[in-house]
Formats: sequence, structure tokens, C-alpha cells
Amino acid sequence: MKIGIVGVYQTKFGELWNQSLQDLIKEAIFGCLKDGQVQPKDIQSAYIGNMLASDGTGQKHLGSVVSQILGLSIPTVRVEAACASGGLALHQAVQSIKSGENETALVIGAEKMTDIDSYDISQALMAASEVEEFDIGLTFPGLYALMAKSYIQKYQLKEKELAGVAVKNHHHAQFNPKAQFRFPVTIDQVLNSPKVADPLKMLDCSPVSDGAAAVFIASSSWVKKNMARNGVYLSGSSIGSDSISLSQRDSFTQLKATQQAAAKAYSQSGIEVKDINCVEVHDCFSIAEIIALEDLGLYPKGEGFHHLTKEETWLGGKRPVNTSGGLKACGHPVGATGIKQIVEATQQLRRESTNRQVEGAQVAVTHNVGGSGGTAVVHVITR
Amino acid sequence: MKIGIVGVYQTKFGELWNQSLQDLIKEAIFGCLKDGQVQPKDIQSAYIGNMLASDGTGQKHLGSVVSQILGLSIPTVRVEAACASGGLALHQAVQSIKSGENETALVIGAEKMTDIDSYDISQALMAASEVEEFDIGLTFPGLYALMAKSYIQKYQLKEKELAGVAVKNHHHAQFNPKAQFRFPVTIDQVLNSPKVADPLKMLDCSPVSDGAAAVFIASSSWVKKNMARNGVYLSGSSIGSDSISLSQRDSFTQLKATQQAAAKAYSQSGIEVKDINCVEVHDCFSIAEIIALEDLGLYPKGEGFHHLTKEETWLGGKRPVNTSGGLKACGHPVGATGIKQIVEATQQLRRESTNRQVEGAQVAVTHNVGGSGGTAVVHVITR
Repeated sequence: MKIGIVGVYQTKFGELWNQSLQDLIKEAIFGCLKDGQVQPKDIQSAYIGNMLASDGTGQKHLGSVVSQILGLSIPTVRVEAACASGGLALHQAVQSIKSGENETALVIGAEKMTDIDSYDISQALMAASEVEEFDIGLTFPGLYALMAKSYIQKYQLKEKELAGVAVKNHHHAQFNPKAQFRFPVTIDQVLNSPKVADPLKMLDCSPVSDGAAAVFIASSSWVKKNMARNGVYLSGSSIGSDSISLSQRDSFTQLKATQQAAAKAYSQSGIEVKDINCVEVHDCFSIAEIIALEDLGLYPKGEGFHHLTKEETWLGGKRPVNTSGGLKACGHPVGATGIKQIVEATQQLRRESTNRQVEGAQVAVTHNVGGSGGTAVVHVITR
Repeated sequence: MKIGIVGVYQTKFGELWNQSLQDLIKEAIFGCLKDGQVQPKDIQSAYIGNMLASDGTGQKHLGSVVSQILGLSIPTVRVEAACASGGLALHQAVQSIKSGENETALVIGAEKMTDIDSYDISQALMAASEVEEFDIGLTFPGLYALMAKSYIQKYQLKEKELAGVAVKNHHHAQFNPKAQFRFPVTIDQVLNSPKVADPLKMLDCSPVSDGAAAVFIASSSWVKKNMARNGVYLSGSSIGSDSISLSQRDSFTQLKATQQAAAKAYSQSGIEVKDINCVEVHDCFSIAEIIALEDLGLYPKGEGFHHLTKEETWLGGKRPVNTSGGLKACGHPVGATGIKQIVEATQQLRRESTNRQVEGAQVAVTHNVGGSGGTAVVHVITR
């Protein structure tokens, strides 16, 4: 399987008070078409990943919203898997092209979170999790705090080591004009920020964000016929799943869904872990990045946190992680995140990342998670 | 394309106060596996169509809920397109099998509407429609009332002719033990029921319902190897779309999405309209059935309502429509409807429909609509 990435676009992420969800979707669509030098008539199908629209304006049925924006009567589909909605929408679009049903697909991830008030948003995010977890009063940060506690006990992770995730990702975000928080933070700032759910502090948590991103993909035969520029390809696309409830899991310190999705995506694309040059992982909370680095096979279990160093996962290191700034500092408009990761990876492989360019990058991996690991989506992008 | 329908199941539709959404999903899954004589280990992927779970318990991310119920870490996907969520989930499953990614898929449609109070449910259903329609005070029945008014003006439809849809579908539901309303109604009862949105009365409208349905599909090679009974096949699966807002449409008396989906599904399966023996159409409001019969090519534009007769679309007639009782009388748990239609069509083709059997049925068509026609899904089922 080799599917061409023809165009990509990301809106600014942040508190975008003067743009509605539909405005964001529109900006992402037309930005993506321009980047790919394609026209609306080239779009044979469209997929959109979104989690929370119904909690904002009360709007669902976003496939049809996309049809209306495009002025096209093409197959349109909305996919939802909490924070993995974007990645999952792309996976569905890939299947649709592989099935021969369509030669091209436009995939949008979009979320407008700041329209939902702060009490409601905490409730709305628990929609990613088991009803029983919700009913006993667990919050979404609370679930990841349980994982962090478990990891700390098992692998002697120190809180100041955990803080290294946010420090790295804030450092990277300084170089990304689309990021929500373009300033550095120190270990001490993370440690002294207000507790959200012990051991997670405010600066261990990704923010509430608005934003959208889009990618236009096409079969390799379409690419050969129509695409001007040198291509970047989606060579692996896979999803894994697990129980929605933490209580049903064997372990709190790994996500089986990520492990499965990664193994399948690597095998589809014929790569090995050593081939990977840069990675975008789902750091919704700092602990999540450490667990992800291990589940993706980049570091052995219990050792992920030793590598938050300039030599390893920082820009300029061996294999930079979250050069976009990650969910933590680039922002996390939930449905958009999985597509934003593809935009970042594509731009890295196209050598368009200016002062955050990973030199000589040939293989990038993206990792998008729904809930506390009920769904995971892994994509491999190659030149 | 020929995909085998291995197992089907429908829960009772109605006000099911003692079953939660998860209970309904569970009943549908295990009922379907039993019907198909397959085991959980045979399921390679699962798709679920649901619109309103987030408005009930606050639960989203239902793919992962399905993983948990099955105790399997297989790819699971939630799809949403308002009342077409079920049909669209099936279409995605078909693409996944056609892509070669999976050989089998379990597809569930489920909805628990009675947990949402009656004011909130009217708001929640408008999530199928354009935000601006919602903001000016239009209700979901109001949108279809505009279509009915337009049709009445254009084609001189009388309100008592319109009432014929409910009379037929209530007649059919008497023979369906899974139906919500198993009693007949008369033209006068429909005409004298309370006005909801002129010209639509209460008995022109489908009800608020709980229920679920499931179908297990497989590639033809899997079927050849594993399936015991004589097969029924999905030979066409197609979606069409249109603007979400009525104001952006050329016509209020036809759904372009249906016309497109039908043309493509018929051509995929190599059937012509004259081959169709029975049909399940999306009669969310009585006017919708009449427009659907025309858009599916069964009757010329403006003539659909002349055929609500014993000789034509009633059981025992030339080509019975909505033998299940339709959305009107079988019930309309929105995400479940598109899959329930497949269950009904499959049972008709397997000759399992007892006293509502369409004799000698070889070809059935199902038609599922999202919102006021922003999405339409058409499936062709053949023996």
C-alpha cells in the first residue's frame, strides 16, 4: 500500500474566538487544496474527525456540512473516536482508496472547544471514557493520573523527570508559528504549576484548543498522473483498540492499542523502528508521551523517560519527538490532532519545517490515541 | 462486489426502560453471532453507528465500548451521520472488506433515546441539521413540513393521501413482533391526531425509540469457507450527500443524495428497478416515504403517493414497502434504523419473515437518510 499525500494544511491552534467550527473547517479545506494544487472537483470523497461539535453548537452530521462547504455531492463521512477521531478518519479514507471505491479523499480534523464552558468541557471529555468511570467521579486527567501513579511505582519515575516532557514540547513549539503556546517552560515551572490530578500538574496537561487540519490523499496511480511535486507517501495506516475502561486492562503502564497499531503499521510499510527519523506522539498528558515512546518500540519498557534529552528526543537529537510542540504546546483541538500530526510529519519529510526541520528525515511516525487508550491509530509516512 | 450477510439480529424496538445503551448493544451483538453461527474470534473488525449517546449518558467513543463487550482488541470504529449512522457504518465496513484489510466485520446500529428528556430530544435531533436552521427556531419535523408543503403545492397531494403512509406501515407492523406499535391506524385517526408542524400530524411522524440491530458480513471467500446456510448477499452499497441546509438545495421535493446513492448501488449490483421485490425506505415522516419511492426510481416524480395501495406497496402487493412497519410503526432508534432495514431485508430474502413474508423475494433495497437529506445510504441485498 502506497498512498500519496498530495496536500496538507493546519490552521493556527489556540483560543480562536473569531472563528466558528465551520470557519475552521473551511480554512483547513481550502488551505489544503491550495497546498496540494488541486481543485474541489478532484475530491472524490471526504472524511471528517470530530468529537465535540454536539457539545458546542449542538451540531452533528458534519459530513453533510463538508458537502455544503465544498458544494459537492460526494460521499462524506464523520468518524468519532474521542481524541483519535482525526487519525481514525484518515484510516477510513485510506481504506476507501484501497477498496477502489475512490481514488482521492480529503480528510479533515476539526474541533472548537472554547465555545463549551469550562465545567461542561471536563464532562464532555469524559465522553471518551467508560460511563462507570464517569459516574464514580473520575475526570479525564484523573485517568491519566492513575496511569502516572502506576508508572511511578513500577519504574521509579520522578516527578521532575516527568516534567521533562512539557519542557521539551514547549521548547519545540517556539519554532512552530501554528502552535498555541510559543514560549519555553522550565522544570520548576512545571513542578510549581497547580495540581490537576496528583501527580499531574497544569503544565503536564494539554490545553483546551480550537483548530483544524486537513490532508488530501490519493492512490498512487492518481498521484502519478496528477501530482506536480515530489511525493510523500502514507505507507502504513493501522488502528488498535482496547477496553474503554481502565479497570478492564491488564496493565496501566502500557497501551495495548498502541502496540498493536504500531506493529501492523510498521509491517505494512516494511520499516523497522531504527528507520524512524521523527515522531509525533499523543502527549495529552506528560505520562502519555513516555508510555507512547515505549509502546511504539522506540525505547524499552520503563526507560522512555531517560531519553527526554537534547541528544535523543529534542530537536537536533537522534530522533526528535513532537517537533510540532505536541498536544501540550502546539495545542489539542481533539478531533484535529490526528491530522495535525500528519501535517507536521509531511512537512518534515518535504523539508518545509524551516527552523524546526529534522535534517534528512526519511521516515516519520504519527500516533493518535482516543480516551485512555481505547483506540490508537498509527501512521507511517515515508518519502 | 459480493459480500455475504452471515448473521443478523434486531432487538425489540420501543420504550425499553430496563435496558441501557450498552445492554442493547450487547443483545444485538450476541444475537447476531448466534444467528450467524459464528464466534467472537471470527470478528476481524467492528463498526457502530450511533447519533445520540453523548446526549444520553454522556458517552462517546463507542468503538472502544464494543471492543470491551467483545473482549477483543480488533479495529473498532464509530460512524455518525445523524439518522443515517447505521447505514453509513455498514458502508464503511463494506469498504474495509473490499480493501482487503479485513475479511469479516460486525456492524451495529444502536440508540437509547428515552433517556433524553422530551425537550432535549427535540434539540438533539436538530443536530442533524444546519446550525442556522436551528438558530431561527426550525425543528426537525418543521424541516420535513417544509418539504411536505412544497410537495403538496407542486403535485396536489391531499393530506388524506399523505396519511396513507402511516396507515400502511402500521398495518405491516402488526405482523412484526419486534415493532414498537403493533396496531392499525385509520386515515381519520392520522388526520385527527395533534398537529406537530403543519401539514404533519403526530401520526405522520416516527416515534422516539430505543433499540439496536446488528449484521455480520464477510468476504465471499470467507463465506465459501465458513458459512453453513444458503447465503444472502450485499451486492450494492453506496452513499450520497447534499448540503446540510435545505436553503442550499435546488428542490424541496427530491433528495439528490438518495438519487445518487441509488443509481450507484443499482449499478454496482447490476440490478434494474424492475428487479426489486421489496424495499425498506426511510419514512421518518410520511412525506419522506413518498419522496423516497420516487427518488429510488420506483415511481415517477409526483406520483409516489398514488401507489399506497393494497395492489402496490402493501404486503401482498406488487412490491411491498416497509414490511417491518418502517420507521413510523416499527420505531426509529436513529442509529439502529439503517441496520434494522438490513435485518428485515435479509430475513425476507431468507424466507424467515413468517406472516409478513414477501413471496419469492429475490432482490431487496434499503434506504437510510441522515437529517433532511444531507446523507443517504442505499444497499441492495440479493439471494
